[in-house]
Amino acid sequence: MINQKYKERLNNKNVIRNLAEFAQKRGKEIGYENVFDYSLGNPSVPVADDFTKTVINMYETKDSAYLHGYSPILGITDVREKIAASLNKRFGMEYSFTHIFPTTGAAGAIAHAVRAVTTPGDTVITFAPYFPEYNPYVEDTGAHLKVVPPETKDFQINFEKFEEMLDETVAAVLVNTPNNPSGAMYSEETLKTLADILLAAEKKYAHEIFLISDEPYREIVFDGKAFAYPAKYYDNTLTCYSFSKSLSLPGERIGYIAVNPRAKDADILTAIFGQISRGIGHNCPSSTMQRAVAEVIDETSDLSVYEKNMNILYDELVKLGFTVVRPDGTFYIFPKALEDDSVAFCKKATNYDLVLVPADNFGCPGYFRMAYCIDTEKVERSLPALEEFVKNEYGA
Amino acid sequence: MINQKYKERLNNKNVIRNLAEFAQKRGKEIGYENVFDYSLGNPSVPVADDFTKTVINMYETKDSAYLHGYSPILGITDVREKIAASLNKRFGMEYSFTHIFPTTGAAGAIAHAVRAVTTPGDTVITFAPYFPEYNPYVEDTGAHLKVVPPETKDFQINFEKFEEMLDETVAAVLVNTPNNPSGAMYSEETLKTLADILLAAEKKYAHEIFLISDEPYREIVFDGKAFAYPAKYYDNTLTCYSFSKSLSLPGERIGYIAVNPRAKDADILTAIFGQISRGIGHNCPSSTMQRAVAEVIDETSDLSVYEKNMNILYDELVKLGFTVVRPDGTFYIFPKALEDDSVAFCKKATNYDLVLVPADNFGCPGYFRMAYCIDTEKVERSLPALEEFVKNEYGA
Repeated sequence: MINQKYKERLNNKNVIRNLAEFAQKRGKEIGYENVFDYSLGNPSVPVADDFTKTVINMYETKDSAYLHGYSPILGITDVREKIAASLNKRFGMEYSFTHIFPTTGAAGAIAHAVRAVTTPGDTVITFAPYFPEYNPYVEDTGAHLKVVPPETKDFQINFEKFEEMLDETVAAVLVNTPNNPSGAMYSEETLKTLADILLAAEKKYAHEIFLISDEPYREIVFDGKAFAYPAKYYDNTLTCYSFSKSLSLPGERIGYIAVNPRAKDADILTAIFGQISRGIGHNCPSSTMQRAVAEVIDETSDLSVYEKNMNILYDELVKLGFTVVRPDGTFYIFPKALEDDSVAFCKKATNYDLVLVPADNFGCPGYFRMAYCIDTEKVERSLPALEEFVKNEYGA
Repeated sequence: MINQKYKERLNNKNVIRNLAEFAQKRGKEIGYENVFDYSLGNPSVPVADDFTKTVINMYETKDSAYLHGYSPILGITDVREKIAASLNKRFGMEYSFTHIFPTTGAAGAIAHAVRAVTTPGDTVITFAPYFPEYNPYVEDTGAHLKVVPPETKDFQINFEKFEEMLDETVAAVLVNTPNNPSGAMYSEETLKTLADILLAAEKKYAHEIFLISDEPYREIVFDGKAFAYPAKYYDNTLTCYSFSKSLSLPGERIGYIAVNPRAKDADILTAIFGQISRGIGHNCPSSTMQRAVAEVIDETSDLSVYEKNMNILYDELVKLGFTVVRPDGTFYIFPKALEDDSVAFCKKATNYDLVLVPADNFGCPGYFRMAYCIDTEKVERSLPALEEFVKNEYGA
């Protein structure tokens, strides 16, 4: 018989999916270029040229077995070495290839990390606003996700609430910096305070609490800021990365977990991930993709458009009277809606062909997300619609 | 803390891995070309030319977002349509794209299929000899794998034992045809009898029993035989396929599940697979790989070398007095060892630079597997070593 747990989920309404369907339908009526679709986190800038050149070159020159043969269950050693070297150089870490485990994007990385360091019944804490897919990633391991309420003044961490919730059942804490949906990057100060609290809790409860750091937007940081790398501040950190955003290839499903060499059990954690892969039949990401990203490990697509779009939208939203925190990075901005019910707010926006995402699912009701990974030209064209929407509906 | 279930598995000895390590080590001493390594199921023939041409062409001409953007959670519709059309034409089925779910190879397909149609505590039955990775695929869902003893005379199914084991806890039956390691393909007669027994059991226990059919070797069938397609014979069949062997690209992790349109809940099963993917962070296989295999859906690499190798080895093994069933397909042959302890037998073989795999892990002690997906020239060079081994050790 069909597993009822999964069957029941089919009934869950998916707000983002419904919005995407609206955008597609409306696009057929008036042309998709006229729908101001801010719902999707699909990168708009093309894949890096060097990536394409690298793949074509590999297909033209490399032996079939080298390129397409089974990769070892822990990933291709050369690839793992290149990832380790890049992280060491950039963040002053001391990874060796044994600490790196290639995964199918950050999604696979997070799900593996949670499975590795929790036992069914354990708690994993995350901070609102948070990416709603964390729910299935955590719950399907048998652990439970608990969400600390948002610190809406700057979208750093609400440490008071966090400490209240940090009981002995907590096996892991899941952070996302820079954050989807808020665009906030955790400051050094935030990461230091977080580390202090976790260390004290580890001592108090006499077991490790792993920090699982989800960092697919690490390369998209604005205003010339440097990315604060969480593993620098806390030994028991598992860094989850995806090349989806930096190289614009989310469909290729390629990323990794980096185990902090100073973490407890750092010598066996990648082997544990390998065992987890066996059990879900997941095995490694595509062998060619592993080799290709390793060849362009320190490159990115031209990501400058996101900062440009952010500036345009941020200025406009402020002008229109929105309460909004200026994003440090990502391609999201996260204003407060102009009425308490952000679902109703976003519904009204569709009448102006604006597709905005209410943040109830992100653990932050009353806010909405705009994904501005679209052409700047379209962002600019959307401003009159945004102005009209706000004026007509909220008299601002 | 680290999950102890996975940690304990690290202590399990992996016989195949140890043999592969021996082969590598010995290869460094005498040259790998002089080690007769029959341990690995990594295809030796190159990927199909048209596949390579297709991928290069896509990289040169297609839009980045088309090629590398997120694929829908149930897979790319065009790709699913092409797979359905190919199966319909070849096997007279009536799949629509809604019945096809792209996966990361057959491994991902099987693990998803088991999760979808079992509830923790259920039983999944398979037939010895069987692929040892079925253990983690099944056990990690919370279901239990039970193994029907082998029918060694022809490696079809031991139906008497099967019926004894087929109790009300059985939610699924997992078959592999043609079979790794035996090389046997289930006959029409076997599949009809299997279907009759399953239908009677479904009636008796008043619940579905799904047939999960693992078919990565379907395109490697010898002596001009036609492949008997299990879904033709039993409605509740989930067909698990990988392009790893037909196109020689196991490292790319690309395959699918095809849900028989006549199966119970056929209209929602792919959506269930999508929910499972969310939970393990697996999502879809590489978008480019999905598109590429769809373009060459009815092609294969030149697989003729496997039949050639099989004939050479089969004749030699018969000549040397082995009890061996002539394989119908795959690139494996599965003789009875010349002593009861096949582990000892294979250990002795390494003294002749022959790497053979004892079948204890395949649920068939006393037998051994030879994977002849290697160059014919090497198969021929291995024959004197095989003869010397048998003569010296067993006086044959």
